[in-house]
Parts: sequence; structure tokens; C-alpha cells
Amino acid sequence: MDRIYRIEYHGSKRYAAEHNGRLFLLDGDLFGEYGFGEEIAHGEFPKDLPAGSRLLAPIQPSKIVAIGLNYKDHAAEQKKPLPAEPMIFIKPSTAVIGPGDPIKLPAGIGRIDFESEVAVVIGKRACKVARERALEYVLGYTCANDVTARGLQNRGYQYSHVKGYDTFAPLGPSIAIGLDPTSIAVQGWRNGEVKQNSSTEQLIFSVADLIAYVSGIMTLLPGDIISTGTPSGIGPLAHGDVFTVKVAGVGELTNPVENL
Amino acid sequence: MDRIYRIEYHGSKRYAAEHNGRLFLLDGDLFGEYGFGEEIAHGEFPKDLPAGSRLLAPIQPSKIVAIGLNYKDHAAEQKKPLPAEPMIFIKPSTAVIGPGDPIKLPAGIGRIDFESEVAVVIGKRACKVARERALEYVLGYTCANDVTARGLQNRGYQYSHVKGYDTFAPLGPSIAIGLDPTSIAVQGWRNGEVKQNSSTEQLIFSVADLIAYVSGIMTLLPGDIISTGTPSGIGPLAHGDVFTVKVAGVGELTNPVENL
Repeated sequence: MDRIYRIEYHGSKRYAAEHNGRLFLLDGDLFGEYGFGEEIAHGEFPKDLPAGSRLLAPIQPSKIVAIGLNYKDHAAEQKKPLPAEPMIFIKPSTAVIGPGDPIKLPAGIGRIDFESEVAVVIGKRACKVARERALEYVLGYTCANDVTARGLQNRGYQYSHVKGYDTFAPLGPSIAIGLDPTSIAVQGWRNGEVKQNSSTEQLIFSVADLIAYVSGIMTLLPGDIISTGTPSGIGPLAHGDVFTVKVAGVGELTNPVENL
Repeated sequence: MDRIYRIEYHGSKRYAAEHNGRLFLLDGDLFGEYGFGEEIAHGEFPKDLPAGSRLLAPIQPSKIVAIGLNYKDHAAEQKKPLPAEPMIFIKPSTAVIGPGDPIKLPAGIGRIDFESEVAVVIGKRACKVARERALEYVLGYTCANDVTARGLQNRGYQYSHVKGYDTFAPLGPSIAIGLDPTSIAVQGWRNGEVKQNSSTEQLIFSVADLIAYVSGIMTLLPGDIISTGTPSGIGPLAHGDVFTVKVAGVGELTNPVENL
């Protein structure tokens, strides 16, 4: 199984592919024709990235379509009924940060929570896609943290606001190719302690359901993200915390937390 | 006062500037250094665009940040209290269409409304901008129709969903440079009958207020849109309708309406 990284390398932003313990620059278009170029490292990734390179968010989406209440246990935790259809909202591209970048907590808006999620990276333009063909539109999967101003959410603000602050969309570290979306383990760790521990087996609406549903409303562009919702165990973030989302096959997305 | 158009011209997408009844291709970067290039037409625009050219949405934003309930009369019409701060949400870039492109009404989602709005086009990256300097970040103004699935909105769906369908964000025809944002007339016409008739004098939160507020939450990128809210007089759209938003100084944004 291969993984795609996006790195700053000798001053430019490049995609790189991990294959059998070797890392290659990608030549061509990740969403079109591409091949393996120069080999730049071997070992374990992202730990053994070449010296002088820096790991970035693996994708810069035009939009993140995120899903509310898509794990049965999280719906129970939020004391909300199971939804009859997916509840969708948009996080802006400007909220995206990469592994290691700080999540910045604005002052005066109350409690701000982590939400560990499995995120789908769309591989090709998707408009009104049938459920049966939906998985053909997937490039791969990554970790997302759907950081949420819970205080404002509980006061009825639109989700695009409470989840749209700059730095509220950590993504990474890789895009894993070829995962079975019906059984991907996801965990959230705050300061070395596991807080969320579930699997896409627990999704109310599957990845295929979500691609069909969302693409029936708004066209998904190559690189767009569907973040599939968070399991139970959500909790607040504070200055000085370190939060890690782990998605099996993808790796670990770790971000420090700072007051803005 | 100058206006910027975006046109398909000899097979490529170009910005063009109207100046004293003459239309010039723009050379350079609309958000950086640019100048007037080849003169391609003279007369009234967009009526007298050169043969074989086609008018496009004047901008392809990374996001549209739109404002709910920002006219006192519309808040009354919706039977909602005046907001204490702007109510913001995001419409995706994929909803954008240009003048003349059809608004497509999905089946089975109930009433779908027009909302005529004055839209601000952001000229440079705006992050945590002070109100006093906010207007320095404006490139110009255009017409927007914040098409809304009112039936779903009334059932509590997130605004990014009910206002995010493909074709639900007509923009155009021009970007007008140098308008005074405190006094811009806006009208909405359905099938030749005026339905909305107001001015930014009636805004609860001014253009400067909105840029300061939104940029304090999420960074605005060059070309992003803040759609400033709709006045009273909203109503439904049906197959066969033609809807026109008129903003003084900008021009007329006319779209036919079709069932999807």
C-alpha cells in the first residue's frame, strides 16, 4: 500500500510517494497521469524525510465538506437523535494546517474541542455520482482534526463559522492509497492519553453514501476533502496541549495547541 | 469609474477593463501589478463585448462568505430578531455561475428563493484586519444572487447545504471599482417585476464591519467574496423564470431558471 506526502523540498512544494520503504518525487499530475521520479529517501516515513525537507498538509483542497453526527456513539454523546440523512457543512481551505503546525485558540469564544476523523481525498471531479460507483472517485484517505468552537456551536452559530477559524483543519500526514473504507481504525490522543477510539465500521453513513450524497448537492473537485465525522470521546483543547489523530494506514497527525 | 469583466476570448479566459467606454484586455495580475493591454471594443458593456467573446462570472473565488439577516427589513420579514453580530456561512466555489447561465432547481427539496445582494470582491489577503483599514482590502463590488433552498433552511439544515447547491451563486456582470459602499442601490427583478429594492444604507453591519469581522475568523484570499446579505422582498423561483439582480454602478446579473 502506497502513501502520498506533500513536502517542501529545495524551496518548492512537491508531492512524494512512499513505496516499499522508498520515497520518490512524483512527476506529473497527482490527479492525472503521474509516475515515480527521483528517489529522495528510504526508511520509515514521515520520520525519515530527507534533510532540509518539511512535511506539509498532504493536500490543499478547494473545500472541506465535513459531516456532523456520523458515528452512533457521538450522536448519543451529543444527546442528539440519529440523523435520517447526512448533515453537511463546509470548512474553508484557509483553515487547513499541516502536521506540526499549531492549532491556535482564539480568545473569548468559549470551549474549543478536538474531533478526530477519517478524511476522504477526492481524486476526480464528482458530480451526482451513484453510490455504486462512488469509490472510483476516491484518491485516498488522510487524518483530519475537525477543530470546533463548541461554545459557539451550542449557541446556534453556523458550523462554517464555529469550525472555520484559521488553523481549525489540521490534515495529514499522508494520503493512504487503497484502504478499505468500511473498516479504518481512528483514534484521538490528547497529551499521550487516548480519548477517541473507533472505526469506520461505526459510521452511520458510509464513505460511498457520503460521496453520493454530497456530490448530488455540490460538485467535488480533485483534492477536495470529505471529513467523515467524529466518534465519541470529544473534549476540549487548551494552550500547551498536544493532540494526535491516528488513522490506521495513514499515520499520525500531531499538532501543538496555542492561544492565538 | 472603471469596471472589470472576465471573458472567454479567443479560447482563453481573460480579464478586461472598461474605461471611458473602451474595453481593454488586462495585462498582468489583477491582484498585483497590471495595466491596460490591447483595446478590444468600445461602446456600452457588457452589451458591446467583441464578437465571439463570452461573459463569465467576473471572479472565481476560493470561497464566498455570505451574511444572513443583514438588512433590518429582511430580518423583520423572516420574523427574526436583529443579530448582535454578523451571521456568517460559506457558499462553495462550485456554486458559482456567470451572467446568462441557468440557475438549476433540484427536485424534491421544496421552495427555492432568490436573494439579491451586493457582493464585495476582496483585493488582497486579509487576516485580522482592523475596521478602520478594512476598505483597503476591497478590489470592487459585484451583484450576487444568494439562491437558497428555503424549504430545507426552515427545517434546520446548515446554510452551506441549503445555499451550496451547484448554480446557487450567480455573480456578475462586472467588478465595479471605486463605489462608496455605504450607499449602493440594489434591486431584484423577477420576470420584469421589481421584488427587492433597497440600498446598503440599510445594512445592519457595514462592508467595513463585515471585512473586519470575517477576517478575524478566517483569512480572506484575493478574489474571495463577501456577500453582504439580502433586503426584504425575497420570494420563490420556478422553472421558466428569469431573475435579475441590479446593483448601481455594477450592472445587471440576469439568469434564467430551469428545473435540474
